[in-house]
Amino acid sequence: MYALLSVSDKSHIIEFAQGLIECGYKILSTSGTLKVLQDSGLEVIDIASYTGAKELFDGRVKTLNPKIAGGILYRRDSLSHQKDAQEEGIEPIDLICVNLYPFKQTIERTQDFEEIVENIDIGGPSMIRAGAKNFQSVLVVTNPSDYPQVLKRLRNGENTLEFRREMMIKAFSHTASYDCLIANYMNERFNGGFGEQIFLSGEKVLTPRYGENPHQKGALYAQGDYFLKHFVILKGEPSFNNFTDIDSALKIASNFQNSVCIIKHGNPCGFALHSNPLEAFSLALSCDTLSAYGGVVAVNAEVSLELAQKIGESFFEVLIAPSFTPQALEFLSNKKKLKLFSLTPKLPHFSLPTQKVSFKSIMGGFLIQEADCITQEEIDNAQRMGDYEATQEQKRDLEIAYKIVALTKSNCVAYVKNGVLVGIGMGMTSRVDASRNAMLKAQDMGLDLRGCVLASEAFFPFKDSIELAVSMGVSAIIEPGGSIRDDEVIECANSHKIPIYFTFKRHFLH
Amino acid sequence: MYALLSVSDKSHIIEFAQGLIECGYKILSTSGTLKVLQDSGLEVIDIASYTGAKELFDGRVKTLNPKIAGGILYRRDSLSHQKDAQEEGIEPIDLICVNLYPFKQTIERTQDFEEIVENIDIGGPSMIRAGAKNFQSVLVVTNPSDYPQVLKRLRNGENTLEFRREMMIKAFSHTASYDCLIANYMNERFNGGFGEQIFLSGEKVLTPRYGENPHQKGALYAQGDYFLKHFVILKGEPSFNNFTDIDSALKIASNFQNSVCIIKHGNPCGFALHSNPLEAFSLALSCDTLSAYGGVVAVNAEVSLELAQKIGESFFEVLIAPSFTPQALEFLSNKKKLKLFSLTPKLPHFSLPTQKVSFKSIMGGFLIQEADCITQEEIDNAQRMGDYEATQEQKRDLEIAYKIVALTKSNCVAYVKNGVLVGIGMGMTSRVDASRNAMLKAQDMGLDLRGCVLASEAFFPFKDSIELAVSMGVSAIIEPGGSIRDDEVIECANSHKIPIYFTFKRHFLH
Repeated sequence: MYALLSVSDKSHIIEFAQGLIECGYKILSTSGTLKVLQDSGLEVIDIASYTGAKELFDGRVKTLNPKIAGGILYRRDSLSHQKDAQEEGIEPIDLICVNLYPFKQTIERTQDFEEIVENIDIGGPSMIRAGAKNFQSVLVVTNPSDYPQVLKRLRNGENTLEFRREMMIKAFSHTASYDCLIANYMNERFNGGFGEQIFLSGEKVLTPRYGENPHQKGALYAQGDYFLKHFVILKGEPSFNNFTDIDSALKIASNFQNSVCIIKHGNPCGFALHSNPLEAFSLALSCDTLSAYGGVVAVNAEVSLELAQKIGESFFEVLIAPSFTPQALEFLSNKKKLKLFSLTPKLPHFSLPTQKVSFKSIMGGFLIQEADCITQEEIDNAQRMGDYEATQEQKRDLEIAYKIVALTKSNCVAYVKNGVLVGIGMGMTSRVDASRNAMLKAQDMGLDLRGCVLASEAFFPFKDSIELAVSMGVSAIIEPGGSIRDDEVIECANSHKIPIYFTFKRHFLH
Repeated sequence: MYALLSVSDKSHIIEFAQGLIECGYKILSTSGTLKVLQDSGLEVIDIASYTGAKELFDGRVKTLNPKIAGGILYRRDSLSHQKDAQEEGIEPIDLICVNLYPFKQTIERTQDFEEIVENIDIGGPSMIRAGAKNFQSVLVVTNPSDYPQVLKRLRNGENTLEFRREMMIKAFSHTASYDCLIANYMNERFNGGFGEQIFLSGEKVLTPRYGENPHQKGALYAQGDYFLKHFVILKGEPSFNNFTDIDSALKIASNFQNSVCIIKHGNPCGFALHSNPLEAFSLALSCDTLSAYGGVVAVNAEVSLELAQKIGESFFEVLIAPSFTPQALEFLSNKKKLKLFSLTPKLPHFSLPTQKVSFKSIMGGFLIQEADCITQEEIDNAQRMGDYEATQEQKRDLEIAYKIVALTKSNCVAYVKNGVLVGIGMGMTSRVDASRNAMLKAQDMGLDLRGCVLASEAFFPFKDSIELAVSMGVSAIIEPGGSIRDDEVIECANSHKIPIYFTFKRHFLH
């Protein structure tokens, strides 16, 4: 009974080999793995002596040999295969433990193309795939975290077909993600990331009870280590929709320390910035107390007991913050329906990874693009288009309003006053509808819009929205510009002595 | 100079081999490919005789041999590699033409697991990957459509490093997508489609000028053959946002023959159903003439000249229909800014493929779920909850309104009257805001809502939206139900003698 061990990641390989020997396996190995095992005093057969073919070309050819391939691949239940094996002196290899040259770590470490290419494993995937194809008889192990389970099963006589099938799926997932990584890397390096084929691969993080609706199954898959390393579930079971809402909440709140953002259906219904987070929360809630019910709250500051108590007065589904004081956490742990999340490392404020691409699922495929981002430069370089200059306070409000609209579903306009979102309209088919909804919402909430600023994520096509804004007391405007009627819009702002700024960068979000 | 040919798809392989021989290559081949080439009278060397190792285990082991692997993999520029090669009698193999066992076709054809497993290629990917790794010296060809280009380059002495690198990227994309397919299939078959790893792979269909915004690069990738086989560009260059809008338009319009749907920012701003498509268009436009400007129009019927002329009176960016009469097409070809698309085969009405899953890109990964769909059964089985029964006409309107809200961004409510969308609110953080916007929109357009029906994609949490609806003259209501205040909502409908139906299936869409 042979087991073939050839691993790039050597963690726990000695214990694993030891365990296999105890279970009666003869160990075949090569190169580095062979050395590690021999150095630890284990009895191991060198593949080169086993096949009679020496390792060639600095290790480029070690295992690509009929005695190895055949030993893995032949059907134990076929008489003709048995005969072939006997005639060729091929013995069965029933366990393959292989993981691959560290392509990922190499591309993260260096730009040296020769070194990168040398770290493309050829023999490894061949053996993994051969073993997986013959899972009827062969057990394939590709991850050190599976060693204990495998040994336990072997010791207990539980090396079942079903188990080998599960390991087969892991094995093909392993080779698939390896080649996806290579193909994407090459496309990124030589074709600017948008090559002829593109691969999005993800590792399951968790399976919520259902997808966007109860009749849909769904799951969350990670790309990179954000979810595995940074997203912390303190309490409760996040739903599919929680993740999209949290995504929106974090993207907005992370722009401003000590801000609070409240999300419903993926869009903000409350936002405020204040040096005191407690005050920020109350102000954010005042924007739309109705929509906020059952929403997702992101607090970009540590949550104190006082703030926790304040939040606890209303019903929210989710609260996420960089950290919580122990007293706050204890208090909130008694809120039955509230789910709590945080991000590690425990910084005083959110620190998010950069999102390089975003994609959209449509019938027949997907659209992929460079992820949008709103840079500080864009705000700082916004150009005054009219005759009037905004005050420092107005500029701060313009920045807040602009960042919010850029991260809210189009069409979107937002009104901000003294760091507080006081009106917002989004997701509509016309910009003037969005403006009107924002105004009506503010009126519903009894908010005084006089002196607020206005932002739009795309140009105002007509002066109608400006006139509506002016009638409500808007004191400054920011938008990308780009309409053929920009002059009309600027003139309208001038005629009402209102500063107007253009950023020249549209931020549609659908 | 050796070329190794081992292909599952034998199209054009004879001409290709002939061409290679003319360029001075000696051809190595095996099994089926060998036979095809020999039968055509070409001089071909059997790999078994070349390696001295016979084909084993019904072809499971043919090419996994150091003489093959080494011949592909060794570095031509390394003295030590040259020495190894010479000592072992390994000659360079400089061209690999391999495509893989038809795993995809097999899983589409049969459920027989043994046959499916037998169609997992092991030797093929090993050779492709080996050749790709050594692209410095080896040219890898994986697609018959590349044969003419390859021969042309060989004939003209243009087998450049850059070309081999491009072919290397194709090669790794080929093996990546092959293993993605296997891993996804196994996950689907044994883990219900939501296994530990999931792979979304796409083939580029086209690169629009930019992504959602001009500062973002973007591209469209196909999964399956919908775009390649069915989506037809008749005129104009589709943009990134066109594709998402078209997706929404088709999903709504395809539900009803002879309907017209107008989309803006991914959401409907016009819809009508009428036996005469010309009439349907005019009615759809009447819903919101303002938003419709520059929108995407889907006509679920052949576009006649008369209809084309009518559409041409307003400015739209996109028109998509199952087909156009020659006169209509000629007329529209003069509309400079209008883009025209259709679907083949040319059926009288849209026929769309089923979308199995949908996914959402978020920071750190993606959410994937079974795609939502609104079945006819769900409508037919909607339960009357109150005391009153809807008329046949009302039922038809309820169906239309319900399908529209289910395919529009949440929160959404829609008012429909005599087959025409007369008011819609969507994408908002509160349902009553959506109701109000729908009503205001209808008033703006001078539409008479009396007698219309109302649908919502999720339950009404309070009776406020019902009361608002009644005040506008709504005559029947459909919604999923599920609120703890359903009784209050039903009672409110009863008190106004309005039929109310529940579907018990929520359709959030974000």
